[in-house]
Amino acid sequence: MSVLATPDQLADARAARRAYREGLAEPTSGVAAGLTQANLIAVPADWAFETLLFAQRNPKPCPVLEVIEQGRVESALAPGSDIRTDIGQYRIWRDGKLAEEVTDATDAWDEHPDLVAFLIGCSFTFEAGLVEAGIPIRHQELGRNVPMYRTNVSCAPAGRLSGELVVSMRPIPASRVADAVQISGRTPAVHGAPVHIGDPASLGILDLAAPDFGDAPEMRDGEIPVFWACGVTPQAAIMASRPPFAVTHSPGYMFITDVPDAEYIV
Amino acid sequence: MSVLATPDQLADARAARRAYREGLAEPTSGVAAGLTQANLIAVPADWAFETLLFAQRNPKPCPVLEVIEQGRVESALAPGSDIRTDIGQYRIWRDGKLAEEVTDATDAWDEHPDLVAFLIGCSFTFEAGLVEAGIPIRHQELGRNVPMYRTNVSCAPAGRLSGELVVSMRPIPASRVADAVQISGRTPAVHGAPVHIGDPASLGILDLAAPDFGDAPEMRDGEIPVFWACGVTPQAAIMASRPPFAVTHSPGYMFITDVPDAEYIV
Repeated sequence: MSVLATPDQLADARAARRAYREGLAEPTSGVAAGLTQANLIAVPADWAFETLLFAQRNPKPCPVLEVIEQGRVESALAPGSDIRTDIGQYRIWRDGKLAEEVTDATDAWDEHPDLVAFLIGCSFTFEAGLVEAGIPIRHQELGRNVPMYRTNVSCAPAGRLSGELVVSMRPIPASRVADAVQISGRTPAVHGAPVHIGDPASLGILDLAAPDFGDAPEMRDGEIPVFWACGVTPQAAIMASRPPFAVTHSPGYMFITDVPDAEYIV
Repeated sequence: MSVLATPDQLADARAARRAYREGLAEPTSGVAAGLTQANLIAVPADWAFETLLFAQRNPKPCPVLEVIEQGRVESALAPGSDIRTDIGQYRIWRDGKLAEEVTDATDAWDEHPDLVAFLIGCSFTFEAGLVEAGIPIRHQELGRNVPMYRTNVSCAPAGRLSGELVVSMRPIPASRVADAVQISGRTPAVHGAPVHIGDPASLGILDLAAPDFGDAPEMRDGEIPVFWACGVTPQAAIMASRPPFAVTHSPGYMFITDVPDAEYIV
Protein backbone atom coordinates (compact mmCIF):
# COMPACT_ATOMS: atom_id res chain seq x y z
CA MET A 1 0.00 0.00 0.00
CA SER A 2 0.97 3.60 -0.33
CA VAL A 3 -0.97 5.46 2.29
CA LEU A 4 -0.29 9.18 2.40
CA ALA A 5 0.01 11.22 5.57
CA THR A 6 -2.24 14.27 5.94
CA PRO A 7 -0.68 17.74 5.82
CA ASP A 8 -1.44 18.17 9.55
CA GLN A 9 0.31 14.90 10.40
CA LEU A 10 3.35 15.86 8.33
CA ALA A 11 3.51 19.27 9.99
CA ASP A 12 3.37 17.59 13.43
CA ALA A 13 6.12 15.13 12.50
CA ARG A 14 8.41 17.84 11.14
CA ALA A 15 7.84 20.08 14.14
CA ALA A 16 8.62 17.19 16.49
CA ARG A 17 11.85 16.25 14.69
CA ARG A 18 12.90 19.90 14.66
CA ALA A 19 12.27 20.22 18.40
CA TYR A 20 14.33 17.10 19.15
CA ARG A 21 17.05 18.39 16.82
CA GLU A 22 17.15 21.59 18.85
CA GLY A 23 17.63 19.64 22.08
CA LEU A 24 14.20 18.68 23.40
CA ALA A 25 14.48 15.33 25.25
CA GLU A 26 10.99 13.93 25.72
CA PRO A 27 9.43 10.50 25.09
CA THR A 28 7.45 10.27 21.86
CA SER A 29 4.32 8.40 22.98
CA GLY A 30 1.34 10.19 21.43
CA VAL A 31 3.49 12.54 19.31
CA ALA A 32 2.46 12.91 15.62
CA ALA A 33 -0.42 10.49 16.14
CA GLY A 34 -1.05 8.14 13.23
CA LEU A 35 2.54 8.22 11.96
CA THR A 36 4.95 5.34 12.42
CA GLN A 37 7.69 5.63 15.03
CA ALA A 38 10.86 3.56 14.84
CA ASN A 39 13.61 2.09 17.01
CA LEU A 40 17.20 2.96 16.03
CA ILE A 41 20.29 0.79 16.09
CA ALA A 42 23.48 1.92 14.34
CA VAL A 43 26.62 -0.22 14.10
CA PRO A 44 29.99 0.05 12.33
CA ALA A 45 29.91 -1.17 8.71
CA ASP A 46 31.84 -4.30 9.68
CA TRP A 47 28.80 -5.38 11.77
CA ALA A 48 26.11 -4.35 9.29
CA PHE A 49 25.63 -7.69 7.52
CA GLU A 50 25.32 -9.57 10.80
CA THR A 51 22.85 -6.99 12.13
CA LEU A 52 20.68 -7.22 9.02
CA LEU A 53 20.93 -11.02 9.11
CA PHE A 54 19.99 -11.05 12.82
CA ALA A 55 16.93 -8.99 11.91
CA GLN A 56 16.06 -11.26 8.97
CA ARG A 57 16.25 -14.31 11.26
CA ASN A 58 14.27 -12.64 14.05
CA PRO A 59 11.65 -10.64 12.16
CA LYS A 60 9.12 -10.46 14.98
CA PRO A 61 11.36 -8.52 17.39
CA CYS A 62 13.45 -6.87 14.64
CA PRO A 63 11.23 -5.77 11.74
CA VAL A 64 13.53 -3.60 9.59
CA LEU A 65 11.73 -0.57 8.17
CA GLU A 66 14.82 1.02 6.63
CA VAL A 67 18.60 0.73 6.43
CA ILE A 68 20.51 4.02 6.17
CA GLU A 69 23.83 3.16 4.62
CA GLN A 70 27.31 4.24 5.58
CA GLY A 71 27.86 7.92 4.80
CA ARG A 72 24.15 8.79 4.84
CA VAL A 73 22.15 10.36 7.67
CA GLU A 74 18.75 11.13 6.09
CA SER A 75 15.91 8.66 6.46
CA ALA A 76 13.90 7.96 3.30
CA LEU A 77 10.90 7.58 5.61
CA ALA A 78 11.29 11.23 6.68
CA PRO A 79 12.68 13.50 3.95
CA GLY A 80 14.84 16.28 5.38
CA SER A 81 15.55 14.35 8.57
CA ASP A 82 18.95 13.77 10.17
CA ILE A 83 19.23 10.50 12.06
CA ARG A 84 22.10 11.94 14.16
CA THR A 85 20.01 14.67 15.76
CA ASP A 86 16.28 14.09 15.24
CA ILE A 87 15.75 11.62 18.09
CA GLY A 88 15.13 13.04 21.57
CA GLN A 89 17.68 10.89 23.36
CA TYR A 90 20.37 8.42 22.25
CA ARG A 91 22.37 5.70 23.95
CA ILE A 92 26.04 5.26 23.10
CA TRP A 93 27.36 1.72 23.60
CA ARG A 94 31.03 0.72 23.87
CA ASP A 95 31.98 -2.96 23.97
CA GLY A 96 28.38 -3.85 24.84
CA LYS A 97 28.22 -1.47 27.79
CA LEU A 98 26.06 1.66 27.97
CA ALA A 99 28.64 4.48 27.95
CA GLU A 100 26.40 7.55 27.92
CA GLU A 101 23.04 9.02 26.98
CA VAL A 102 23.05 12.11 24.77
CA THR A 103 20.48 14.29 22.99
CA ASP A 104 22.68 14.69 19.89
CA ALA A 105 24.63 11.81 18.33
CA THR A 106 26.68 13.89 15.88
CA ASP A 107 29.86 13.19 17.85
CA ALA A 108 29.20 9.45 17.57
CA TRP A 109 28.92 9.68 13.78
CA ASP A 110 32.05 11.87 13.68
CA GLU A 111 33.90 9.22 15.67
CA HIS A 112 32.57 6.37 13.48
CA PRO A 113 31.72 7.76 10.02
CA ASP A 114 31.06 4.19 8.81
CA LEU A 115 27.97 3.72 10.99
CA VAL A 116 25.07 1.92 9.27
CA ALA A 117 21.71 2.79 10.84
CA PHE A 118 18.75 0.43 11.10
CA LEU A 119 15.22 1.70 11.75
CA ILE A 120 13.15 -1.05 13.38
CA GLY A 121 9.35 -1.14 13.69
CA CYS A 122 7.75 -0.16 16.97
CA SER A 123 4.70 -1.45 18.81
CA PHE A 124 3.18 2.03 18.89
CA THR A 125 1.96 1.21 15.37
CA PHE A 126 -0.34 -1.65 16.39
CA GLU A 127 -1.33 0.06 19.65
CA ALA A 128 -3.21 2.63 17.58
CA GLY A 129 -5.26 -0.20 16.08
CA LEU A 130 -6.01 -1.66 19.51
CA VAL A 131 -7.21 1.69 20.83
CA GLU A 132 -9.43 2.17 17.78
CA ALA A 133 -11.02 -1.20 18.54
CA GLY A 134 -11.75 -0.12 22.11
CA ILE A 135 -9.04 -2.25 23.68
CA PRO A 136 -7.49 -0.18 26.47
CA ILE A 137 -3.71 0.30 26.53
CA ARG A 138 -3.01 0.53 30.25
CA HIS A 139 0.43 2.15 30.14
CA GLN A 140 -0.90 4.86 27.82
CA GLU A 141 -3.81 5.56 30.19
CA LEU A 142 -1.36 5.88 33.08
CA GLY A 143 1.12 7.99 31.11
CA ARG A 144 3.84 5.38 31.63
CA ASN A 145 6.29 3.54 29.41
CA VAL A 146 5.30 0.01 28.36
CA PRO A 147 6.84 -2.72 30.59
CA MET A 148 9.49 -4.79 28.81
CA TYR A 149 11.09 -8.04 29.95
CA ARG A 150 14.06 -10.14 29.01
CA THR A 151 13.03 -13.77 28.43
CA ASN A 152 14.55 -17.24 28.39
CA VAL A 153 13.89 -17.47 24.63
CA SER A 154 17.05 -17.28 22.52
CA CYS A 155 16.96 -15.36 19.27
CA ALA A 156 18.39 -17.09 16.20
CA PRO A 157 22.05 -15.99 16.19
CA ALA A 158 23.75 -14.35 13.19
CA GLY A 159 27.53 -14.53 13.17
CA ARG A 160 28.79 -12.67 16.23
CA LEU A 161 25.32 -11.41 17.20
CA SER A 162 23.15 -13.35 19.61
CA GLY A 163 20.87 -12.59 22.51
CA GLU A 164 17.56 -13.23 24.16
CA LEU A 165 14.13 -12.17 23.00
CA VAL A 166 12.81 -9.07 24.77
CA VAL A 167 9.02 -8.76 25.02
CA SER A 168 6.64 -5.94 25.84
CA MET A 169 3.53 -6.72 27.90
CA ARG A 170 0.03 -5.28 27.79
CA PRO A 171 -2.72 -6.43 30.19
CA ILE A 172 -5.76 -7.26 28.04
CA PRO A 173 -9.26 -8.23 29.25
CA ALA A 174 -9.77 -11.95 28.62
CA SER A 175 -12.71 -11.20 26.33
CA ARG A 176 -10.55 -9.02 24.06
CA VAL A 177 -7.38 -11.15 23.82
CA ALA A 178 -8.47 -12.79 20.56
CA ASP A 179 -9.26 -9.37 19.06
CA ALA A 180 -5.85 -8.09 20.14
CA VAL A 181 -4.22 -11.06 18.39
CA GLN A 182 -6.12 -10.48 15.18
CA ILE A 183 -5.61 -6.71 15.10
CA SER A 184 -1.86 -6.83 15.79
CA GLY A 185 -1.54 -9.81 13.44
CA ARG A 186 -2.52 -7.51 10.58
CA THR A 187 0.74 -5.58 10.98
CA PRO A 188 3.37 -8.30 10.56
CA ALA A 189 5.95 -5.64 9.61
CA VAL A 190 5.73 -4.11 13.09
CA HIS A 191 5.98 -7.07 15.48
CA GLY A 192 2.67 -8.66 14.42
CA ALA A 193 0.68 -11.02 16.63
CA PRO A 194 1.76 -11.73 20.22
CA VAL A 195 4.51 -14.29 20.84
CA HIS A 196 3.02 -15.48 24.14
CA ILE A 197 -0.31 -15.13 25.97
CA GLY A 198 -0.55 -15.68 29.72
CA ASP A 199 1.83 -17.77 31.90
CA PRO A 200 4.79 -15.39 32.25
CA ALA A 201 6.79 -18.04 34.13
CA SER A 202 7.26 -20.19 31.05
CA LEU A 203 8.96 -17.19 29.37
CA GLY A 204 11.26 -16.99 32.40
CA ILE A 205 9.49 -13.89 33.74
CA LEU A 206 9.19 -14.49 37.48
CA ASP A 207 7.83 -11.10 38.57
CA LEU A 208 5.61 -9.07 36.24
CA ALA A 209 5.92 -6.13 38.64
CA ALA A 210 9.66 -5.86 37.98
CA PRO A 211 10.20 -5.26 34.25
CA ASP A 212 13.75 -5.06 32.88
CA PHE A 213 12.94 -1.91 30.86
CA GLY A 214 10.09 0.62 31.08
CA ASP A 215 7.63 1.04 33.92
CA ALA A 216 5.86 -1.50 36.16
CA PRO A 217 2.45 -2.59 34.86
CA GLU A 218 -0.88 -2.46 36.64
CA MET A 219 -2.78 -5.74 36.25
CA ARG A 220 -6.49 -5.78 37.00
CA ASP A 221 -8.93 -8.64 37.67
CA GLY A 222 -9.88 -10.53 34.53
CA GLU A 223 -6.87 -9.34 32.57
CA ILE A 224 -4.39 -11.62 30.85
CA PRO A 225 -0.75 -10.60 30.33
CA VAL A 226 -0.17 -10.56 26.56
CA PHE A 227 3.43 -10.48 25.31
CA TRP A 228 4.65 -9.06 22.01
CA ALA A 229 8.15 -9.27 20.53
CA CYS A 230 9.88 -5.97 21.31
CA GLY A 231 12.17 -3.69 19.31
CA VAL A 232 14.50 -3.43 22.31
CA THR A 233 15.69 -6.96 21.43
CA PRO A 234 18.58 -5.62 19.28
CA GLN A 235 19.80 -3.59 22.29
CA ALA A 236 19.84 -6.79 24.34
CA ALA A 237 21.82 -8.48 21.56
CA ILE A 238 24.33 -5.62 21.68
CA MET A 239 24.70 -6.01 25.42
CA ALA A 240 25.21 -9.77 24.96
CA SER A 241 27.43 -9.65 21.86
CA ARG A 242 29.61 -6.61 22.61
CA PRO A 243 30.33 -4.92 19.30
CA PRO A 244 33.01 -2.27 19.87
CA PHE A 245 30.58 0.59 19.23
CA ALA A 246 26.87 1.14 18.69
CA VAL A 247 24.25 3.89 18.91
CA THR A 248 20.60 3.30 19.74
CA HIS A 249 17.64 5.44 20.71
CA SER A 250 16.82 5.56 24.42
CA PRO A 251 13.74 3.40 25.14
CA GLY A 252 10.60 5.47 24.61
CA TYR A 253 12.45 8.16 22.60
CA MET A 254 11.64 6.96 19.10
CA PHE A 255 12.40 8.25 15.61
CA ILE A 256 9.26 9.83 14.11
CA THR A 257 8.70 9.11 10.42
CA ASP A 258 6.36 10.64 7.83
CA VAL A 259 4.79 7.22 7.13
CA PRO A 260 1.22 6.54 8.32
CA ASP A 261 0.77 3.49 10.56
CA ALA A 262 -1.81 2.29 8.03
CA GLU A 263 1.02 1.71 5.54
CA TYR A 264 2.05 -1.37 7.54
CA ILE A 265 -1.38 -3.00 7.71
CA VAL A 266 -1.56 -6.10 5.47
CA MET B 1 3.03 -20.25 13.10
CA SER B 2 4.77 -23.56 13.28
CA VAL B 3 2.96 -25.84 10.88
CA LEU B 4 4.42 -29.34 10.63
CA ALA B 5 4.77 -31.29 7.40
CA THR B 6 3.19 -34.74 7.28
CA PRO B 7 5.47 -37.82 7.16
CA ASP B 8 4.36 -38.42 3.56
CA GLN B 9 5.26 -34.86 2.54
CA LEU B 10 8.66 -35.13 4.21
CA ALA B 11 9.33 -38.44 2.48
CA ASP B 12 8.43 -36.86 -0.87
CA ALA B 13 10.69 -33.85 -0.25
CA ARG B 14 13.64 -35.99 0.78
CA ALA B 15 13.20 -38.34 -2.16
CA ALA B 16 13.06 -35.38 -4.55
CA ARG B 17 16.20 -33.74 -3.13
CA ARG B 18 17.99 -37.11 -3.29
CA ALA B 19 17.00 -37.58 -6.94
CA TYR B 20 18.24 -34.09 -7.88
CA ARG B 21 21.45 -34.75 -5.92
CA GLU B 22 21.98 -37.88 -8.00
CA GLY B 23 21.63 -35.91 -11.22
CA LEU B 24 17.93 -35.72 -12.11
CA ALA B 25 17.26 -32.42 -13.91
CA GLU B 26 13.50 -31.81 -13.94
CA PRO B 27 11.35 -28.78 -13.08
CA THR B 28 9.77 -28.95 -9.62
CA SER B 29 6.22 -27.79 -10.34
CA GLY B 30 3.90 -30.16 -8.45
CA VAL B 31 6.74 -31.98 -6.66
CA ALA B 32 6.27 -32.53 -2.88
CA ALA B 33 2.88 -30.79 -3.01
CA GLY B 34 2.14 -28.59 -0.02
CA LEU B 35 5.77 -27.88 0.80
CA THR B 36 7.45 -24.56 0.11
CA GLN B 37 9.85 -24.27 -2.83
CA ALA B 38 12.50 -21.58 -3.00
CA ASN B 39 14.58 -19.58 -5.45
CA LEU B 40 18.36 -19.63 -4.93
CA ILE B 41 20.90 -16.86 -5.33
CA ALA B 42 24.44 -17.26 -4.00
CA VAL B 43 27.05 -14.49 -4.10
CA PRO B 44 30.58 -14.01 -2.78
CA ALA B 45 30.70 -12.79 0.85
CA ASP B 46 31.76 -9.33 -0.30
CA TRP B 47 28.34 -8.95 -1.99
CA ALA B 48 26.26 -10.50 0.80
CA PHE B 49 25.30 -7.31 2.66
CA GLU B 50 24.18 -5.58 -0.53
CA THR B 51 22.19 -8.65 -1.60
CA LEU B 52 20.42 -8.85 1.77
CA LEU B 53 19.83 -5.09 1.69
CA PHE B 54 18.46 -5.30 -1.87
CA ALA B 55 16.04 -7.96 -0.63
CA GLN B 56 15.07 -5.89 2.42
CA ARG B 57 14.32 -2.92 0.17
CA ASN B 58 12.42 -5.00 -2.39
CA PRO B 59 10.56 -7.48 -0.21
CA LYS B 60 7.79 -8.27 -2.69
CA PRO B 61 10.09 -9.69 -5.40
CA CYS B 62 12.80 -10.82 -2.94
CA PRO B 63 11.25 -12.33 0.20
CA VAL B 64 14.20 -13.94 2.00
CA LEU B 65 13.27 -17.27 3.58
CA GLU B 66 16.80 -18.14 4.71
CA VAL B 67 20.42 -17.04 4.46
CA ILE B 68 23.00 -19.83 4.44
CA GLU B 69 26.23 -18.26 5.60
CA GLN B 70 29.72 -18.58 4.18
CA GLY B 71 31.14 -22.06 4.84
CA ARG B 72 27.72 -23.70 5.25
CA VAL B 73 25.78 -25.70 2.65
CA GLU B 74 22.84 -27.17 4.64
CA SER B 75 19.50 -25.36 4.65
CA ALA B 76 17.80 -25.06 8.03
CA LEU B 77 14.53 -25.37 6.11
CA ALA B 78 15.57 -28.86 4.94
CA PRO B 79 17.73 -30.76 7.45
CA GLY B 80 20.24 -33.03 5.73
CA SER B 81 20.12 -31.01 2.51
CA ASP B 82 23.10 -29.76 0.52
CA ILE B 83 22.44 -26.52 -1.36
CA ARG B 84 25.28 -27.32 -3.81
CA THR B 85 23.63 -30.48 -5.15
CA ASP B 86 19.95 -30.68 -4.19
CA ILE B 87 18.57 -28.44 -6.93
CA GLY B 88 17.86 -30.00 -10.31
CA GLN B 89 19.64 -27.36 -12.39
CA TYR B 90 21.84 -24.37 -11.57
CA ARG B 91 22.99 -21.30 -13.46
CA ILE B 92 26.56 -20.06 -13.06
CA TRP B 93 27.03 -16.33 -13.67
CA ARG B 94 30.33 -14.58 -14.37
CA ASP B 95 30.44 -10.78 -14.53
CA GLY B 96 26.66 -10.69 -14.96
CA LYS B 97 26.64 -13.09 -17.90
CA LEU B 98 25.21 -16.60 -17.85
CA ALA B 99 28.31 -18.79 -18.19
CA GLU B 100 26.82 -22.29 -17.92
CA GLU B 101 23.98 -24.43 -16.60
CA VAL B 102 24.93 -27.43 -14.45
CA THR B 103 23.13 -30.08 -12.41
CA ASP B 104 25.72 -29.97 -9.61
CA ALA B 105 27.20 -26.72 -8.24
CA THR B 106 29.91 -28.28 -6.09
CA ASP B 107 32.61 -26.95 -8.41
CA ALA B 108 31.19 -23.43 -8.01
CA TRP B 109 31.45 -23.66 -4.22
CA ASP B 110 34.95 -25.12 -4.53
CA GLU B 111 35.94 -22.16 -6.70
CA HIS B 112 34.30 -19.65 -4.33
CA PRO B 113 34.21 -21.14 -0.82
CA ASP B 114 32.95 -17.79 0.53
CA LEU B 115 29.58 -18.01 -1.25
CA VAL B 116 26.61 -16.85 0.84
CA ALA B 117 23.34 -18.45 -0.33
CA PHE B 118 19.93 -16.78 -0.18
CA LEU B 119 16.71 -18.77 -0.42
CA ILE B 120 13.91 -16.56 -1.75
CA GLY B 121 10.18 -17.31 -1.58
CA CYS B 122 8.42 -18.64 -4.67
CA SER B 123 4.97 -18.04 -6.11
CA PHE B 124 4.23 -21.78 -6.04
CA THR B 125 3.31 -21.19 -2.39
CA PHE B 126 0.36 -18.90 -3.11
CA GLU B 127 -0.65 -20.83 -6.25
CA ALA B 128 -1.66 -23.71 -3.99
CA GLY B 129 -4.07 -21.37 -2.20
CA LEU B 130 -5.53 -20.15 -5.49
CA VAL B 131 -6.13 -23.69 -6.71
CA GLU B 132 -7.80 -24.61 -3.41
CA ALA B 133 -10.16 -21.66 -3.93
CA GLY B 134 -11.09 -22.93 -7.39
CA ILE B 135 -9.09 -20.28 -9.25
CA PRO B 136 -7.50 -21.99 -12.26
CA ILE B 137 -3.75 -21.64 -12.79
CA ARG B 138 -3.48 -21.77 -16.56
CA HIS B 139 0.23 -22.61 -16.89
CA GLN B 140 -0.21 -25.51 -14.47
CA GLU B 141 -3.16 -26.83 -16.46
CA LEU B 142 -1.07 -26.66 -19.64
CA GLY B 143 2.02 -28.18 -18.02
CA ARG B 144 4.02 -25.05 -18.83
CA ASN B 145 6.27 -22.71 -16.88
CA VAL B 146 4.70 -19.46 -15.67
CA PRO B 147 5.32 -16.49 -18.04
CA MET B 148 7.68 -13.88 -16.57
CA TYR B 149 8.39 -10.37 -17.84
CA ARG B 150 10.94 -7.66 -17.22
CA THR B 151 9.21 -4.34 -16.48
CA ASN B 152 9.94 -0.62 -16.57
CA VAL B 153 9.72 -0.50 -12.75
CA SER B 154 13.09 0.01 -11.04
CA CYS B 155 13.80 -1.84 -7.84
CA ALA B 156 15.19 0.19 -4.94
CA PRO B 157 18.97 -0.10 -5.39
CA ALA B 158 21.34 -1.30 -2.66
CA GLY B 159 24.97 -0.31 -3.09
CA ARG B 160 26.21 -1.89 -6.30
CA LEU B 161 22.99 -3.86 -6.85
CA SER B 162 20.18 -2.47 -8.96
CA GLY B 163 17.79 -3.74 -11.56
CA GLU B 164 14.25 -3.86 -12.81
CA LEU B 165 11.30 -5.61 -11.25
CA VAL B 166 10.46 -8.94 -12.88
CA VAL B 167 6.84 -10.06 -12.66
CA SER B 168 5.03 -13.32 -13.24
CA MET B 169 1.59 -13.24 -14.90
CA ARG B 170 -1.47 -15.40 -14.41
CA PRO B 171 -4.68 -14.89 -16.43
CA ILE B 172 -7.54 -14.71 -13.89
CA PRO B 173 -11.29 -14.53 -14.69
CA ALA B 174 -12.50 -11.01 -13.92
CA SER B 175 -14.91 -12.34 -11.30
CA ARG B 176 -12.05 -13.98 -9.35
CA VAL B 177 -9.43 -11.23 -9.46
CA ALA B 178 -10.45 -9.82 -6.07
CA ASP B 179 -10.28 -13.31 -4.53
CA ALA B 180 -6.84 -13.85 -6.04
CA VAL B 181 -5.68 -10.57 -4.45
CA GLN B 182 -7.00 -11.51 -1.05
CA ILE B 183 -5.69 -15.08 -1.09
CA SER B 184 -2.18 -14.17 -2.24
CA GLY B 185 -2.22 -11.16 0.11
CA ARG B 186 -2.31 -13.58 3.04
CA THR B 187 1.19 -14.76 2.21
CA PRO B 188 3.23 -11.54 2.36
CA ALA B 189 6.40 -13.59 2.94
CA VAL B 190 6.10 -15.18 -0.51
CA HIS B 191 5.40 -12.25 -2.87
CA GLY B 192 1.99 -11.40 -1.38
CA ALA B 193 -0.72 -9.55 -3.29
CA PRO B 194 -0.26 -8.67 -6.99
CA VAL B 195 1.78 -5.59 -7.89
CA HIS B 196 -0.32 -4.77 -10.98
CA ILE B 197 -3.70 -5.86 -12.39
CA GLY B 198 -4.52 -5.39 -16.08
CA ASP B 199 -2.92 -2.87 -18.49
CA PRO B 200 0.43 -4.58 -19.24
CA ALA B 201 1.55 -1.56 -21.30
CA SER B 202 1.92 0.66 -18.26
CA LEU B 203 4.42 -1.88 -16.86
CA GLY B 204 6.32 -1.63 -20.12
CA ILE B 205 5.10 -5.04 -21.32
CA LEU B 206 4.25 -4.58 -24.98
CA ASP B 207 3.51 -8.18 -25.94
CA LEU B 208 2.08 -10.62 -23.39
CA ALA B 209 2.72 -13.44 -25.85
CA ALA B 210 6.48 -12.89 -25.65
CA PRO B 211 7.59 -13.33 -22.04
CA ASP B 212 11.25 -12.74 -21.11
CA PHE B 213 11.38 -15.96 -19.06
CA GLY B 214 9.14 -19.05 -18.96
CA ASP B 215 6.50 -20.03 -21.50
CA ALA B 216 3.97 -17.96 -23.47
CA PRO B 217 0.59 -17.60 -21.76
CA GLU B 218 -2.82 -18.48 -23.11
CA MET B 219 -5.33 -15.67 -22.43
CA ARG B 220 -9.05 -16.44 -22.74
CA ASP B 221 -12.08 -14.18 -23.06
CA GLY B 222 -13.03 -12.49 -19.81
CA GLU B 223 -9.61 -12.98 -18.24
CA ILE B 224 -7.48 -10.20 -16.78
CA PRO B 225 -3.68 -10.40 -16.74
CA VAL B 226 -2.64 -10.30 -13.06
CA PHE B 227 1.01 -9.58 -12.26
CA TRP B 228 2.90 -10.67 -9.16
CA ALA B 229 6.42 -9.71 -8.12
CA CYS B 230 8.71 -12.56 -9.15
CA GLY B 231 11.66 -14.26 -7.47
CA VAL B 232 13.61 -14.06 -10.74
CA THR B 233 14.11 -10.34 -9.96
CA PRO B 234 17.46 -11.00 -8.19
CA GLN B 235 18.71 -12.75 -11.36
CA ALA B 236 17.81 -9.65 -13.35
CA ALA B 237 19.71 -7.54 -10.81
CA ILE B 238 22.74 -9.79 -11.28
CA MET B 239 22.55 -9.37 -15.02
CA ALA B 240 22.30 -5.59 -14.59
CA SER B 241 24.87 -5.19 -11.79
CA ARG B 242 27.53 -7.71 -12.84
CA PRO B 243 28.99 -9.16 -9.66
CA PRO B 244 32.10 -11.18 -10.59
CA PHE B 245 30.43 -14.48 -9.69
CA ALA B 246 27.01 -15.81 -8.71
CA VAL B 247 25.06 -19.05 -8.65
CA THR B 248 21.28 -19.27 -9.03
CA HIS B 249 18.76 -22.02 -9.68
CA SER B 250 17.53 -22.34 -13.26
CA PRO B 251 14.00 -20.91 -13.55
CA GLY B 252 11.47 -23.61 -12.67
CA TYR B 253 14.07 -25.81 -10.95
CA MET B 254 13.46 -24.78 -7.35
CA PHE B 255 14.90 -25.84 -4.00
CA ILE B 256 12.38 -28.02 -2.15
CA THR B 257 12.14 -27.40 1.59
CA ASP B 258 10.52 -29.37 4.42
CA VAL B 259 8.35 -26.35 5.36
CA PRO B 260 4.60 -26.47 4.60
CA ASP B 261 3.22 -23.63 2.49
CA ALA B 262 0.77 -22.97 5.33
CA GLU B 263 3.70 -21.76 7.48
CA TYR B 264 3.79 -18.56 5.42
CA ILE B 265 0.09 -17.69 5.68
CA VAL B 266 -0.47 -14.70 7.98
